[in-house]
Amino acid sequence: MSVYKPKPVSGFPEWLPEERLIEQQWFDHIRNVFESYGFCSIETPSVEEIDVISAKGEVDKEIYVLERLHKEEGEKDARLALHFDQTVPLARYVAQHFNNLVFPFKRYQIQRVWRGERPQAGRFREFYQCDIDVINVDALPLHFDAEMPAIIWETLAGLPGMEKPENKIQLRISNRKILIGLCEELRIENVTEVIRIIDKLEKIGEQDVFADLLELGLSDIQLEKIIALASIKATPKYISGLLRDFITRNDVIARSDSNEAIQNLFKEGIEELTTVMNQLSHLPEGAVVADLSIVRGLDYYTGTVYETVFTDDPGYGSICSGGRYDDLASSYINKKLPGVGISIGFSRLFDKLRTKGAFDTTRKSPADILMVLPDEEQRETASETARTLRERGYNVELFHRAQKIQKQFAYAEKKGIPYVWLPDTGEVKCMASRNQSKADPKTWTKPEEESRDAAVA
Amino acid sequence: MSVYKPKPVSGFPEWLPEERLIEQQWFDHIRNVFESYGFCSIETPSVEEIDVISAKGEVDKEIYVLERLHKEEGEKDARLALHFDQTVPLARYVAQHFNNLVFPFKRYQIQRVWRGERPQAGRFREFYQCDIDVINVDALPLHFDAEMPAIIWETLAGLPGMEKPENKIQLRISNRKILIGLCEELRIENVTEVIRIIDKLEKIGEQDVFADLLELGLSDIQLEKIIALASIKATPKYISGLLRDFITRNDVIARSDSNEAIQNLFKEGIEELTTVMNQLSHLPEGAVVADLSIVRGLDYYTGTVYETVFTDDPGYGSICSGGRYDDLASSYINKKLPGVGISIGFSRLFDKLRTKGAFDTTRKSPADILMVLPDEEQRETASETARTLRERGYNVELFHRAQKIQKQFAYAEKKGIPYVWLPDTGEVKCMASRNQSKADPKTWTKPEEESRDAAVA
Repeated sequence: MSVYKPKPVSGFPEWLPEERLIEQQWFDHIRNVFESYGFCSIETPSVEEIDVISAKGEVDKEIYVLERLHKEEGEKDARLALHFDQTVPLARYVAQHFNNLVFPFKRYQIQRVWRGERPQAGRFREFYQCDIDVINVDALPLHFDAEMPAIIWETLAGLPGMEKPENKIQLRISNRKILIGLCEELRIENVTEVIRIIDKLEKIGEQDVFADLLELGLSDIQLEKIIALASIKATPKYISGLLRDFITRNDVIARSDSNEAIQNLFKEGIEELTTVMNQLSHLPEGAVVADLSIVRGLDYYTGTVYETVFTDDPGYGSICSGGRYDDLASSYINKKLPGVGISIGFSRLFDKLRTKGAFDTTRKSPADILMVLPDEEQRETASETARTLRERGYNVELFHRAQKIQKQFAYAEKKGIPYVWLPDTGEVKCMASRNQSKADPKTWTKPEEESRDAAVA
Repeated sequence: MSVYKPKPVSGFPEWLPEERLIEQQWFDHIRNVFESYGFCSIETPSVEEIDVISAKGEVDKEIYVLERLHKEEGEKDARLALHFDQTVPLARYVAQHFNNLVFPFKRYQIQRVWRGERPQAGRFREFYQCDIDVINVDALPLHFDAEMPAIIWETLAGLPGMEKPENKIQLRISNRKILIGLCEELRIENVTEVIRIIDKLEKIGEQDVFADLLELGLSDIQLEKIIALASIKATPKYISGLLRDFITRNDVIARSDSNEAIQNLFKEGIEELTTVMNQLSHLPEGAVVADLSIVRGLDYYTGTVYETVFTDDPGYGSICSGGRYDDLASSYINKKLPGVGISIGFSRLFDKLRTKGAFDTTRKSPADILMVLPDEEQRETASETARTLRERGYNVELFHRAQKIQKQFAYAEKKGIPYVWLPDTGEVKCMASRNQSKADPKTWTKPEEESRDAAVA
């Protein structure tokens, strides 16, 4: 038979079992944190109808369309495409199940998404995204704008591998109303363009931003105030003082000729950002900062915006972003559905830490214990002991053949299984410490559990 | 703006949050059992190259091929298709990562698979499959043939909803070597055809099977013996006796003119089935039976075969099937890789119980506790209390607005959140019993946990 040697498909990652074990820990942790704040899980199909995706207009995204391999002539199925994010599916889901949901609808969604891009190094065409959003009808309390960063901090900072000092992260928060309000107050016409330029601050630096704004035709005063605003960066403790200073110094609110609506937009932004930051003072120093240069490129966002960067490597870009939006699903339902949400680019982050060697990949199996099979006569004893330990919550692999005991130990070593149980002598051996001692399967605990229990007692 | 009202896409199921909560419990349980036997998780990309899928010959499966929506003229990407099962991906994975895996390679895989079928009622085009397999190099101990049914029994019987008497299941086990050996011993030429007919026994009944075998040209003696064999059905305790009886009565092994290889095949099958059944005697009465009518249609299987049916509704078909195979991946690697595995058709089973109303869908949220927000002044107390409870492992939703307390209770009711905490009075109310009592967030436990703790002590 001819052999077709398979090779990796560019952009479609897959992990070895020891890496997958860590990936599972990541997913478990993310899910636990999301659920600890009362968010429910949903999953949507991998596909949406192209009519749904294009309800807002032409689809400019790189998407994959499905074709049946054995389709018949003239077949008139609805055309389906793999989803490229979880926002379109969420909007469609909320519209479709509107009457069966309780609002505010707090949902998280951890699924694969697909980008039908040309293969290129370092770009995934299939990857996991972890999204968390709250949707409400008509109006959405600011409460949630403050809950999001707290959840995301707890999520990211607690991921295995992220505790290393070089992987320290920071959440950066702003409110688009402030910059937009200021632009309008300053009679700047091309607000969208200003936002686009400010968005590049981290990437191109202050000088280039300066130059780009000048080129846009901003006056010195306009320029100075915009840059002064975008330079504000402070922890929860200091942000309201800094914003007050800025207002006083730049005489933003006091001007008598200003338009009230614009004034209100600016003031609203300031109030919202201050309120959000106030509710985040319980987080560790440096975990979150208000950073007025954060605007997020998307027009979609209307208030609070979030970004997350590695403190030591901000140039890597945001690993987790989001914000507030006014209109989730008006393409699918006649309702005003504002929301706020944030999304972790899971696979890219996981792969970054994986390639940096941040993970301990000793364990290649979820087994806590390898149960030795000394000989066929003791199969029932070994099985019974394994069952007792499993009932008590341990993962126990029963060795598959009555081989020499040294071979069974070597197997445990190779798989990184931490304990080996000898059912004939009733002993258990810790592979790390090489300690071997008598044990009863009905009461045995791992040494680290023992000391933990002792510490609690 | 025009509104495009979305509708469900035929064959692509999605669940409401309260159903998804149960689905998560199912996945958790399945994973826990699989891991408790030391199986590791892997995931593969959703796609395989068509060259991989067609390595064995023409692809007759209904598969979905991917096309980039914005592909360029003359683009020469590898053609990709969504996988239609997890066996092709497993074979490709083992071949590709051969040098990085520890054998026997015990893996489970829980992913979506796709069938590019025409839309039709009751047929899923996207669904979850839960596969568990062991692969070894050259030879695979029979140990694993016996481990599979034990794992599957524990898995299926423990799923929420499956404990109801009407959802009782039974695993049926056979070994294809026995029927094939008997056919050859009886000089029956068209063995494949006999297997195909016997496979329909449950569906069409004994009389039709009889008729079909007659039509195939079997003699009375051949027919009688084949039917006698296929009628054998016994629990672990009785199977070896029944098989011995069959051999004696039908004079199968004693014949002097028989071919040794055929004799060995038959004997091997008997021995293997007996050994497997012996190792399953710890399971509850009726959980597993040896059933010689089970042959599984696929040519793929070479020894032990499994099926699982609802005891009260065997006509529904097998909800979990598998068996032993000699050759996993010879299309991709020059190695002999035998394996044994079993696969749960997850979504079909879940949907069956869902539509039967087997699930308690009161809870629409993972929150254990709703933390009341009595007024804005008490936000910090409420947040702090919520945080303390979260650190202790509880899922706590902090209510999003200082509304009338009755509204907050109504919200908990609507979402099925079992406890409501009043941070101002330091009391907690159980929504089911209406009991309200003082509680300390640092020590509080759910009443059922208290009584459980008391029972243990």
